[in-house]
Amino acid sequence: MSDHIRIVLVNTTHPGNIGGVARAMKNMGVSDLCLVEPKSFPHPDADARASGATDILEKARVVSTLDEALADCGLIFGTSARERHIPWPLVNPRELAAIAIPLEGKARVAILFGREDRGLTNEELQRCHHHVHIPAVESFSSLNIAAAVQVITYELRMAQVADQQAARPQWGTDWDIELAEQRELELMFEHLERTLVEIEFLDPNNPRQLMPRLRRLLQRAVPDKVEVNVLRGILTAIERRSGQVKKDKSDV
Amino acid sequence: MSDHIRIVLVNTTHPGNIGGVARAMKNMGVSDLCLVEPKSFPHPDADARASGATDILEKARVVSTLDEALADCGLIFGTSARERHIPWPLVNPRELAAIAIPLEGKARVAILFGREDRGLTNEELQRCHHHVHIPAVESFSSLNIAAAVQVITYELRMAQVADQQAARPQWGTDWDIELAEQRELELMFEHLERTLVEIEFLDPNNPRQLMPRLRRLLQRAVPDKVEVNVLRGILTAIERRSGQVKKDKSDV
Repeated sequence: MSDHIRIVLVNTTHPGNIGGVARAMKNMGVSDLCLVEPKSFPHPDADARASGATDILEKARVVSTLDEALADCGLIFGTSARERHIPWPLVNPRELAAIAIPLEGKARVAILFGREDRGLTNEELQRCHHHVHIPAVESFSSLNIAAAVQVITYELRMAQVADQQAARPQWGTDWDIELAEQRELELMFEHLERTLVEIEFLDPNNPRQLMPRLRRLLQRAVPDKVEVNVLRGILTAIERRSGQVKKDKSDV
Repeated sequence: MSDHIRIVLVNTTHPGNIGGVARAMKNMGVSDLCLVEPKSFPHPDADARASGATDILEKARVVSTLDEALADCGLIFGTSARERHIPWPLVNPRELAAIAIPLEGKARVAILFGREDRGLTNEELQRCHHHVHIPAVESFSSLNIAAAVQVITYELRMAQVADQQAARPQWGTDWDIELAEQRELELMFEHLERTLVEIEFLDPNNPRQLMPRLRRLLQRAVPDKVEVNVLRGILTAIERRSGQVKKDKSDV
């Protein structure tokens, strides 16, 4: 949980968006929501879009001035889609997260989101230490407010889970089967080659690049033990079918 | 633009969500939308939530099977919030982008999003090369579908603009004024110190850590030339007011 992060929505018009913001926050472990003069709140549309994040809405603080929302905050970011007259220190959401997450326990961090139609005013933006810009396409740069909160809280969460990400297992998830060991793979490739010769697909006197190509293919998949057993089972079945006569002879 | 990326929505129930997806895509420069058996489409709710991204909706292809949606795709990702019975190669949205963006011009990449209430079926997920998981809080892990598309297309865009990000100027944005040079700063600090002595805030016989603290503060801000001039103007004004008598005398 990012208990030191506060999401501040300024003059939000559509209550559905407030619900969407609450859902996005809860998805990403952020719970402190402050609403500066929302047009309609509480509202059934907010509850509907929150889709289970009603606890965030119930705890949300409604205030009448931005000052009240920011009073106890040590660092303030304002979201901005437009180029401003006076340049301001500008970060992207990833840089915001890199600054904000390490402040846990040290300072409260507010992130401001403006009105659906025209964002934050210049005066509001000048209250901020940094501006944050989501790198959208220039010709269509205005994100839905809940979508913008989703992107920024996602980056906060990514920064927070970075340590556990670094320790992720093979393939990014726990596997239920051990990977095959090299000697098992080699036995499989020998078996494969034998089988290909047996079925006269591979000419031992003119092997060309067939085996290297097959190795490259199968090794790219990094097979596990069960997969190797399955493949060998298939090869055995092919051999049996193909070499029935020979096999019968040798069995005598 | 990421012309090789296709967003595929499977059996979407709420047309508003399709509109939200279109807006998120257009924000991030992705335009290829394919809808597999949507419940209601086209629909006014989709147009409303698209909020100007109606071109994406107009170009969207509606198909009746997942096969049609994926036929020309070389790499397929499926979004998944739940743990699955059979583990599957799993990436996060950033890893997805690192894999997908370099494939531009080489392969079409599909990213599948499932039903609002229960995601993709196991069979649909088994059509995918990789699963992609947005690292939400485990106890509340289901994102709104438009929010999920926003996060993933944001990562695609971040990967695409990485080069220009690396070359970003001081403060992350173009500044309209040159930074002050060191000698200008030193002259300002001398001026500041003189002024502080003049107004008897600083005792030259017992300066303590006042000037180092002020230097540390102002230098953290890395002032530009205009800012230094403004500060010196203030100091001059203070001096003038404070030292009126002395100044009058020296002017004689």
